[in-house]
Amino acid sequence: MPEFLELLPPDEALAHWQARLPEYSLTSEVIETSQALGRVTAEPIIASHPLPSFTRSAMDGYAVRAADTHGASDSLPAYLKLIGEAPMGAVTELSIQPGECVLIHTGGMLPENADAVVMVEHTQSARPAEIEIAHAAAVSENVICQGEDVAPGEIVIGQGVRLRPQEIGGLMALGVTRVCVYRQLRVGLISSGDEVIPPDAELHPGQVRDVNSYSLGALVAHNGALAVQYGIVPDQAEALRTTAKRALAACDLLLVTAGSSASARDLTAQVINQLGEPGVLVHGVSVRPGKPTILAVCNGKAVVGLPGNPVSAMVIALLLVTPLLRRLSGEKTPAYQATVEARLSLNLPSQAGREDWAPVRLSRAQAGWQAEPVFGKSNLIFTLVRADGLVRIPAAATGLSAGELVEVKLI
Amino acid sequence: MPEFLELLPPDEALAHWQARLPEYSLTSEVIETSQALGRVTAEPIIASHPLPSFTRSAMDGYAVRAADTHGASDSLPAYLKLIGEAPMGAVTELSIQPGECVLIHTGGMLPENADAVVMVEHTQSARPAEIEIAHAAAVSENVICQGEDVAPGEIVIGQGVRLRPQEIGGLMALGVTRVCVYRQLRVGLISSGDEVIPPDAELHPGQVRDVNSYSLGALVAHNGALAVQYGIVPDQAEALRTTAKRALAACDLLLVTAGSSASARDLTAQVINQLGEPGVLVHGVSVRPGKPTILAVCNGKAVVGLPGNPVSAMVIALLLVTPLLRRLSGEKTPAYQATVEARLSLNLPSQAGREDWAPVRLSRAQAGWQAEPVFGKSNLIFTLVRADGLVRIPAAATGLSAGELVEVKLI
Repeated sequence: MPEFLELLPPDEALAHWQARLPEYSLTSEVIETSQALGRVTAEPIIASHPLPSFTRSAMDGYAVRAADTHGASDSLPAYLKLIGEAPMGAVTELSIQPGECVLIHTGGMLPENADAVVMVEHTQSARPAEIEIAHAAAVSENVICQGEDVAPGEIVIGQGVRLRPQEIGGLMALGVTRVCVYRQLRVGLISSGDEVIPPDAELHPGQVRDVNSYSLGALVAHNGALAVQYGIVPDQAEALRTTAKRALAACDLLLVTAGSSASARDLTAQVINQLGEPGVLVHGVSVRPGKPTILAVCNGKAVVGLPGNPVSAMVIALLLVTPLLRRLSGEKTPAYQATVEARLSLNLPSQAGREDWAPVRLSRAQAGWQAEPVFGKSNLIFTLVRADGLVRIPAAATGLSAGELVEVKLI
Repeated sequence: MPEFLELLPPDEALAHWQARLPEYSLTSEVIETSQALGRVTAEPIIASHPLPSFTRSAMDGYAVRAADTHGASDSLPAYLKLIGEAPMGAVTELSIQPGECVLIHTGGMLPENADAVVMVEHTQSARPAEIEIAHAAAVSENVICQGEDVAPGEIVIGQGVRLRPQEIGGLMALGVTRVCVYRQLRVGLISSGDEVIPPDAELHPGQVRDVNSYSLGALVAHNGALAVQYGIVPDQAEALRTTAKRALAACDLLLVTAGSSASARDLTAQVINQLGEPGVLVHGVSVRPGKPTILAVCNGKAVVGLPGNPVSAMVIALLLVTPLLRRLSGEKTPAYQATVEARLSLNLPSQAGREDWAPVRLSRAQAGWQAEPVFGKSNLIFTLVRADGLVRIPAAATGLSAGELVEVKLI
């Protein structure tokens, strides 16, 4: 069932897998905008009116006709008749004629015929009802025109955008208090392995507690999806098949962590392959940790067989599962990899021919950050607890040198 | 009440403010570890037992006494008597004597007297119950010793750590299914301004909808704190004072966004200054956008007066409020600023003597990322919707040049 004799590096494995995964559309729902942080828009959002909805002042000062201030300066000010004050939060009934001005505050509505605002700093109150203007205003100076932020009919937020705080604010500015978003992705999680027990059970010699359901569940939640737990299944084909079928039917994506032994991993691969066509597409990835990874598509849904080792499972989830979560969630925006640039404090050896991801801890150096490798066998979960991020060692390299500048992917 | 005649840059304003803020301790609560993602530990977590809890194999192969394999190679293999198989998930009753080995799987418990595992790839089944070993194993090779990840009594997670997916997993590995965390920070939010109306109200000329309560509320939630909404208050000292007092009593931190006019901002500063000692510490910051920012401490709690302009409010919240949220939440880990390195596509002009933060949009370039400035007056909320991040223009610079490498802080 695996298609490659040589294992692919993570990027290529991901691309091969995604290329075979059919388009996947989540249904949508309409929710309160105030509750929509982190959700993904299911349709474009179109402005029904301009923003700002009226032409307003960007400064405290005097609304003028720019033409009346031409040539005005400190040494040769213009004098305008003050005919009133523009109220805040209400329509201005005032209309200025040549030679007139109106006191206005930031955010106030420009009176009729005014086309600029002179900052209060450039003015003096000369005589009662007369203002001395020491600045020649250009048309639209210190003015925010109606529709300058958003024109009516403009698509302000596209389809497939994950809503950030500023989008929530922008929607509220337009009075869009309910928004159509994709429903949250449901990600099924199965832990398998005869040696695995629930975290709250009594631990007997030879057993290990289930880590993956929780670390992966938290990662899924962190990515805005819903983790659906299917518990621990022993290394028996029938039991695993039954649970996996049920999970795949109810979820959009299925993550199965295999038992730690080779036979348990083979069993997982075999069960996944039988869940539907085309089955397993990638069996093994040229990466450390995480080599025994299975990427499959079964009846139009993605299925991942993750290594039972919790560190491998987390690294593979970060590298291969999170990009898929974004795609399946309907998100169209590109994934910016925000990283911290740091200097490696020690040599980081690696085996050539395979991409390595090594955990590092960050600390402040004289200039910038220092990345200190967290050594330890790659299957100890607390190596990731002690780490702030991962550093990639390319397949072609035999390691990275102390002092080298590296990009740390925060975990 | 402001202490500086010259405005401080954001870093210094933040340091001055924080230095005057007394230690602040949240009460703690015990919650399910599975629900604790993003919460901050209120006490150190100590391992009650070693991890792994038993010495186990890291490979599929044969458990041996390393001494029995000394000198073994492809050309001169050692022959060991196979006395059984170590079961998965159970204690191994087997004990090996000189010249004996046991079949073992990854994660299986090492039998008594075994001190190494030879990978199956280096073995052959020679005769029934005899294994040919073509590799000289070192002591502990392919073995994870009891306590190699965590020793009993070790502090595995310190106090003041915000729990990530790997900490959730690590706690489960130790059977810690409930964890003591600080209660969530309560952040009070007040919008003020005669021109401001709720987003679902009918918009009349001269009015604007409340953006800040929602964009800032979402930012607060994104930082793991609870946003407590106190609604919109008109520009009247008594009304603002009453609401602010109530909010400050019930919350750990108070954010007040001022009306947009200078008089409304002065009113906000005056009311904040009367909320308690020492009152306003910083009035105005040398940054654009966000200059009219008020940083205060009132009776031991932090109070922030944010500019009414939604873009300024967001930028100041990102620069000055989020570090405080981390501190008040009890988080002790340093804040890594993950950024995206990009090349500026156009010149970005700026006024020297004041730190500027300019919105940019990221796109893929031939090599790496390109940052395209999002131009537009700094008070248009959709400039932040159109942007992926902010670029800092230092106070000493008069701008940044096209082609320059910049660090983009994602927003």
